[in-house]
Amino acid sequence: MSDHETNLLPPDWAFEFHGHFCPFMPLGYRMGLLALQRMGVDREQDHTLHVVCELGEGHPQTCLIDGIQVATGATFGKTLIEKTFWGKLAATFWYPGKTAVRYSLKPSFLDAFGTQEFFAYRKKGIEPSGIPADVTRKAIDWMLSQADDDVFARTDRPDFQMHPPKGSFNKSLCSVCGEYVFERYVRMQDGKPVCIPCSGYAR
Amino acid sequence: MSDHETNLLPPDWAFEFHGHFCPFMPLGYRMGLLALQRMGVDREQDHTLHVVCELGEGHPQTCLIDGIQVATGATFGKTLIEKTFWGKLAATFWYPGKTAVRYSLKPSFLDAFGTQEFFAYRKKGIEPSGIPADVTRKAIDWMLSQADDDVFARTDRPDFQMHPPKGSFNKSLCSVCGEYVFERYVRMQDGKPVCIPCSGYAR
Repeated sequence: MSDHETNLLPPDWAFEFHGHFCPFMPLGYRMGLLALQRMGVDREQDHTLHVVCELGEGHPQTCLIDGIQVATGATFGKTLIEKTFWGKLAATFWYPGKTAVRYSLKPSFLDAFGTQEFFAYRKKGIEPSGIPADVTRKAIDWMLSQADDDVFARTDRPDFQMHPPKGSFNKSLCSVCGEYVFERYVRMQDGKPVCIPCSGYAR
Repeated sequence: MSDHETNLLPPDWAFEFHGHFCPFMPLGYRMGLLALQRMGVDREQDHTLHVVCELGEGHPQTCLIDGIQVATGATFGKTLIEKTFWGKLAATFWYPGKTAVRYSLKPSFLDAFGTQEFFAYRKKGIEPSGIPADVTRKAIDWMLSQADDDVFARTDRPDFQMHPPKGSFNKSLCSVCGEYVFERYVRMQDGKPVCIPCSGYAR
């Protein structure tokens, strides 16, 4: 691999986090790096950068999202990344005061990438951890060898805004189960504070 | 720290993934380890173990979820972890053929934990990356020194079942934007396949 390609490869711990060796986590990592560079921001340490991913469930290639978490620091645990459930391989990156940017994978790239042997294994139902490492490696190397413009379509989205909810540390004990509930999720029933599952309310 | 406590501390890369040094990510890691042990399963490499977290948004301590991702391998990118938006510090762990288990943080633990200086900084609006490392370390060490039974309430949930959607590799090009859409999210409009955002449908 060239130096350029090496720099695009996620650190070893990213594969450990992800749990298996696959090409879509590194592809998401690459997308995340591009977005940081485009917006001129560093990897998120705390709670500012947000990512809205257009992927869903019940389809492959969602591993892209773990690469985005790793590259950007916009983690699920920090409430910085979400899904729209649109089944699309795209994501919009937002940082206050910057122009939001959307990256999607080009169909021409996906068509070519899909001919890699790795995907023949996947379509046979073999999980990534069961696919020979050299087969996976070949798919990753091929992906890394493609130019940014051949892989990603970019759209600047100056009108895209997010409004993360203002946080509060306040919490109350549910009068039924006795567990703590953060204030925005406390509901009232018979004049007493309850958590949503104890209330029976849908939300 | 004792050997026991050292074994409960997440690996260094977990803090790198998470982006800052804080006590709730390590607490989630500890919860995740307990759940794996209780169910007798290994860290998830692929797509089987699922975790349903009862946390929400607009409240602190969601970092717990990143620790759960790290410990269990049930990552957001693998579509293995979700939130109920109930604002509760609890999660249910599910693996087919095993008894699902729910862990929550005891109110008595949270009351005592909350007196740690770390939280005084947080309530003043200081982000975790801006809090002196020795203050954070003290909160982590105190948490690690508490016995499992003092920290966590456990409920076995033999009736808890999940039904992850069957995946499909099939995808179509949206007739409007020209991007790929995985089949379950393709919609029809004027007899042509479209993606949800191009359709204007809510979902």
